[in-house]
Amino acid sequence: MATSSSLAASQALVGRTTISQSGSTSQSDRLALPGFRLSNLAGRGIKSQSLRVADSRKRVSSRSSIRAAAVETLDNTDTSIIDKSVNTIRFLAIDSVEKANSGHPGLPMGCAPMGHILYDEVMKYNPKNPKWFNRDRFVLSAGHGCMLQYALLHLAGFDSVKEEDLKAFRQWGSKTPGHPEHFETPGIEVTTGPLGQGIANAVGLALAEKHLAARYNKPDAEIVDHYTYCILGDGCQMEGVANEACSIAGHWGLGKLIAFYDDNHISIDGNTEIAFTENVETRFEGLGWHVIWVKNGNTGYDEIRAAIKEAKAVKDKPTLIKVTTTIGYGSPNKSNSYSVHGSALGAKEVDATRQNLGWPHEPFHVPEDVKKHWSHHTPEGASLEAEWNAKFAEYEKKYKVEAAELNSLINGELPAGWEKALPTYTPESPPEATRILSQLCLNALAKVLPGLLGGSADLASSNMTLLKMFGNFQKNTPEERNVRFGVREHSMGAICNGIALHCPGLIPYCATFFVFTDYMRAAMRISALGETGVIYVMTHDSIGLGEDGPTHQPIEHLASFRAMPNILMLRPADGNETAGAYKVAVLNRKRPSVLALSRQKLAQLPGTSIEGVAKGGYTITDNSSGNKPDVILMSTGSELEIAAKAADELRKEGKAVRVVSFVSWELFDDQSDEYKESVLPSAVTARVSIEAGTTFGWQKLVGSKGKAIGIDTFGASAPAGKIYKEFGITAEAVIAAAKELC
Amino acid sequence: MATSSSLAASQALVGRTTISQSGSTSQSDRLALPGFRLSNLAGRGIKSQSLRVADSRKRVSSRSSIRAAAVETLDNTDTSIIDKSVNTIRFLAIDSVEKANSGHPGLPMGCAPMGHILYDEVMKYNPKNPKWFNRDRFVLSAGHGCMLQYALLHLAGFDSVKEEDLKAFRQWGSKTPGHPEHFETPGIEVTTGPLGQGIANAVGLALAEKHLAARYNKPDAEIVDHYTYCILGDGCQMEGVANEACSIAGHWGLGKLIAFYDDNHISIDGNTEIAFTENVETRFEGLGWHVIWVKNGNTGYDEIRAAIKEAKAVKDKPTLIKVTTTIGYGSPNKSNSYSVHGSALGAKEVDATRQNLGWPHEPFHVPEDVKKHWSHHTPEGASLEAEWNAKFAEYEKKYKVEAAELNSLINGELPAGWEKALPTYTPESPPEATRILSQLCLNALAKVLPGLLGGSADLASSNMTLLKMFGNFQKNTPEERNVRFGVREHSMGAICNGIALHCPGLIPYCATFFVFTDYMRAAMRISALGETGVIYVMTHDSIGLGEDGPTHQPIEHLASFRAMPNILMLRPADGNETAGAYKVAVLNRKRPSVLALSRQKLAQLPGTSIEGVAKGGYTITDNSSGNKPDVILMSTGSELEIAAKAADELRKEGKAVRVVSFVSWELFDDQSDEYKESVLPSAVTARVSIEAGTTFGWQKLVGSKGKAIGIDTFGASAPAGKIYKEFGITAEAVIAAAKELC
Repeated sequence: MATSSSLAASQALVGRTTISQSGSTSQSDRLALPGFRLSNLAGRGIKSQSLRVADSRKRVSSRSSIRAAAVETLDNTDTSIIDKSVNTIRFLAIDSVEKANSGHPGLPMGCAPMGHILYDEVMKYNPKNPKWFNRDRFVLSAGHGCMLQYALLHLAGFDSVKEEDLKAFRQWGSKTPGHPEHFETPGIEVTTGPLGQGIANAVGLALAEKHLAARYNKPDAEIVDHYTYCILGDGCQMEGVANEACSIAGHWGLGKLIAFYDDNHISIDGNTEIAFTENVETRFEGLGWHVIWVKNGNTGYDEIRAAIKEAKAVKDKPTLIKVTTTIGYGSPNKSNSYSVHGSALGAKEVDATRQNLGWPHEPFHVPEDVKKHWSHHTPEGASLEAEWNAKFAEYEKKYKVEAAELNSLINGELPAGWEKALPTYTPESPPEATRILSQLCLNALAKVLPGLLGGSADLASSNMTLLKMFGNFQKNTPEERNVRFGVREHSMGAICNGIALHCPGLIPYCATFFVFTDYMRAAMRISALGETGVIYVMTHDSIGLGEDGPTHQPIEHLASFRAMPNILMLRPADGNETAGAYKVAVLNRKRPSVLALSRQKLAQLPGTSIEGVAKGGYTITDNSSGNKPDVILMSTGSELEIAAKAADELRKEGKAVRVVSFVSWELFDDQSDEYKESVLPSAVTARVSIEAGTTFGWQKLVGSKGKAIGIDTFGASAPAGKIYKEFGITAEAVIAAAKELC
Repeated sequence: MATSSSLAASQALVGRTTISQSGSTSQSDRLALPGFRLSNLAGRGIKSQSLRVADSRKRVSSRSSIRAAAVETLDNTDTSIIDKSVNTIRFLAIDSVEKANSGHPGLPMGCAPMGHILYDEVMKYNPKNPKWFNRDRFVLSAGHGCMLQYALLHLAGFDSVKEEDLKAFRQWGSKTPGHPEHFETPGIEVTTGPLGQGIANAVGLALAEKHLAARYNKPDAEIVDHYTYCILGDGCQMEGVANEACSIAGHWGLGKLIAFYDDNHISIDGNTEIAFTENVETRFEGLGWHVIWVKNGNTGYDEIRAAIKEAKAVKDKPTLIKVTTTIGYGSPNKSNSYSVHGSALGAKEVDATRQNLGWPHEPFHVPEDVKKHWSHHTPEGASLEAEWNAKFAEYEKKYKVEAAELNSLINGELPAGWEKALPTYTPESPPEATRILSQLCLNALAKVLPGLLGGSADLASSNMTLLKMFGNFQKNTPEERNVRFGVREHSMGAICNGIALHCPGLIPYCATFFVFTDYMRAAMRISALGETGVIYVMTHDSIGLGEDGPTHQPIEHLASFRAMPNILMLRPADGNETAGAYKVAVLNRKRPSVLALSRQKLAQLPGTSIEGVAKGGYTITDNSSGNKPDVILMSTGSELEIAAKAADELRKEGKAVRVVSFVSWELFDDQSDEYKESVLPSAVTARVSIEAGTTFGWQKLVGSKGKAIGIDTFGASAPAGKIYKEFGITAEAVIAAAKELC
């Protein structure tokens, strides 16, 4: 603790300042200052009497069974170099934020000790191959503190974060964006920032590990064996998605998930006492987690180590380690306040912090002994991977089939000819709901795609998502592939992001009613931004669901996903198109797919095809010649049948009518101009669209002179047929509109 | 218990069936069958030895301090008529669902006892004036069980649910839609169905009561004084939004919020053991709630009564009453299974249930004695209201100012001339971020609108939403108007829905970064569907937020709200437009408003006006004549300044250029065709739009020949100016596009 011995007395653990805002007086009695147990710090160069220590632990009821981490002094560490490394992390964060004049220094300053211990002492990884399969995964759910992770990746020897990258923090084109983005920075596992997502991603990563371990490990070969670590803050803890994810993680008994709760009592609006006074430990006990409390996260290295050891020993429950820290630790005037949360310290306070922590170095300086200390990770990482490779080679000899399959999951190779498993249909095939046709695809694909797994948010029997040849993924049957997410849409999406990012061959799907994408949109956006090929199976995709009424009837949802970048919105019309949609979804590993599927039965239409779907928009029937139809009717999903009927009628009256399925606007956008012109000749302005949803956006396809038939109000509760009629989603309406135009 | 004495032995409390699905074996040990305390049932005609009772209470850890409700036998009730009433409720639900062949009979059958006790014995309301201000509020968060509430409203004498309405359950135009919709059915307080929303609405209703009571009650006049009751099921409990809402409710100490958790262990996918094994009681203890367990919710009337009594005695905490029930109670072959959750029982099982519960009546029959029993609510309700009116008249005499103000809140009258408080600007006023201009509006309005209250999801200092003359709404300062929601966007929206629906004069606003509307979209949709004028203050509305990067930069969000029915998406460009947006938002009490506001400073533009905003789209500058500009430039918010600059340049080159602000597409849509033509003459096809978001949807305004400049990919982390330049959101791009077109 040499370098910290000069620490200003008031900074060792900063007293929680009471809050004087109006309305918060009722909380101030929580802020009594009981004595801190200082024994852990004794003998480490800290004069216990010089510490002013505050604690608001009155919230922990006396009956609480949460134990503080048992402290064992480990002899194999040199405390002074660790202090120095921890301060290096702090100053790399401080300096990067200062240079960018933007960012969040507070969390890295407070979490540097646990970060150091994780990356230097606990986690196994190979800095020169960040994608090594059996690495431990780390997720910074409190993504705004990304300078913590960038500093750690830098020290650990990852090529993605060199000194120049730190200096380019938050600048155009840098590897160090404002929040962690796995697609930008090798070594980052998932994309975080929106709070609560990361812990749910971590649940997905831990699920994937447990699942693959159960499928591929052998009594003589633990080929899949790693931990998932996560740091989450007060903000994450408040988010509903985090509670959902932690509830299901407890249910699944994800023993290799270890989450650190950075309990610093500060969020953007100030002390968490103004909005967050629940007892987090009690809640996590209720969620079935093992809970440990590290009271001194600022300097209690041994407490942190002991907590991790204890967490690893608990194999049937995930562990939450509540680590009490001081945000902005070391800053004499800003620590323990919201002012250090999300802004640069400012030159003066940076100087004061250098002074206070005894840090004489230039900005971005990494002392030689710290460099040297961390230098072993490159060779060690190489050894770890080599060892595992040797183990895998052994495994391959004994378990050829399993090894080949696991290899394909690790590398993301789809088995040759997989797409032949998809069913096809003729117009004579019986009418069927696309949600049922979807289940046939899922079950056909599950036989040929070893990485396909997923489920529904408590609507498996409505979404038709059960894989019939598999049981349920559960605590004691983790080898199974039906995942029961419970009524937790938001975390379902975020967990699937985690599964997909565990290794490229895992293809998670998840399901609910289409309207409830509203609950999980934040996770779906992260799929899109993070180039994560989750398959979203969204049934009951329109007023066609009938009696459940407007709370359950999507109207604006197709448009809202068509507007989102890098996501494929697919609305298949029948069996062939459903198969085509799955082909697209499986092939697009870097672009999530949303499949909007009907509750109601739909006819198998002439002209639909798997190949057509791949183009996004294509002609299914046409009696025109010379690319000059009198009118183009266009539609998607359940209304394509209506367009086809209207076309039949119009043709009887002598019209040249083209019917176009616009199953995916994004895929159509990707086609050549020639192709687009062949489907939608610009000379033909008589165009009518019909879709049981908002007309918003259809102007792009029908043009200024065309007509879009849809529903621009909310739906209604009644039998489906009645609603279609009342809203005018009928062949008659299409015919009338077409006649007006041609 | 006379009518139940014929109950089949296996139906009194149906044993939890163990689940045999793969993967669930680990849970089966939870399903041990400890003996049930039968003493409560003794002497009520039930032979205790004939009951086979199961319980899965192993989940309640032995150390748990949750006490079962103390049972007091209340002598003032006639048990047999209550049984009959409870069975009436059950069969009204069964019969309505059967007739519709659609709906959810299971919950009403299980919750009929608590429903009966609430509406018949506990709640104060006036059936002939469902809007009587001081009524107790009831929220069915498990909205799919709406037949419970319809049956209760029917029995209690609400004119909205007559026998013919029950017979029209889930039919076109009926007052009894598939989920409760307050805008359709007087007596329904909020619109539920999407799980978890209702309990969060209930938190909002309870907040409103606590707030108004603190503001208007006097030592000698408790003029605001009611409870908020809620029933939520396992599904609600799993939703993150519910945990968020209950966490903040515990923080606020909402002692008059009493929630019944219908613990029936069944969700759509089967036994909750497959996905939901957390200890709910422990979690709620952690959230700061008082928790009571009613072990026999099927017939334990006194247990339910005692629990409510106890809950009311706890004044500083909300109470969760866990009521263990049997879903589909009374159905011999379907109770306690998912098959009774969401489908009609079928004629055969309806007969068997009639047999089992000893119910010889025709469908929809309400026995005369049951009618008689409930008939007192109409006169009693009238008395309650009259009493309160008299009390209010007294209050009015003594506290004239307060009474007038409260009256205006009750009636939703805006004070005359309120809009004069809004600030106006000239082009010479200094540039400012619209989020700052928004704060000026909020603070100006708070002085003249007694019903304005709200806050942010932990971003008050970024969203600029603090009302400077008020303190924080907190447990002990509930009269204040700054609401600190914590990082809980989803429940924030749902809580605001509850506040707004408490009485029409309350105008809640809430805030976060615009991108995080993704977290709360489900609640926002309920605002829109439910005609609830919440004001959503959404700042950091584009790439203009800069360094935080793509996780924080909205792209598709403007389009996604423009596509949503009945919501106003407003993106003001400067001070006048921000004031105009607030004027629109306050006036639209049945249409929520989303204000997208900039982080960055924007110039005050010539030509903008409050009046212009009201029209949604309007010309701010124009040097053309005869409604024939060479080109129309159109934009919103922060890019309107860019369009104006481009226009200046083009005009220097001799072009006739019109600049149109499209601050709200919905309001423009509402204008007359003549007005639209005056702004966007159809003859002028040279049109260029610019907006720092997706181009999706702009084709509607720029037409087939126009050009939309925007961003159809995700953003990036860098200083704002740099990002604008790199994405081509510049005056140069507008000029180039305009020159191509004219």
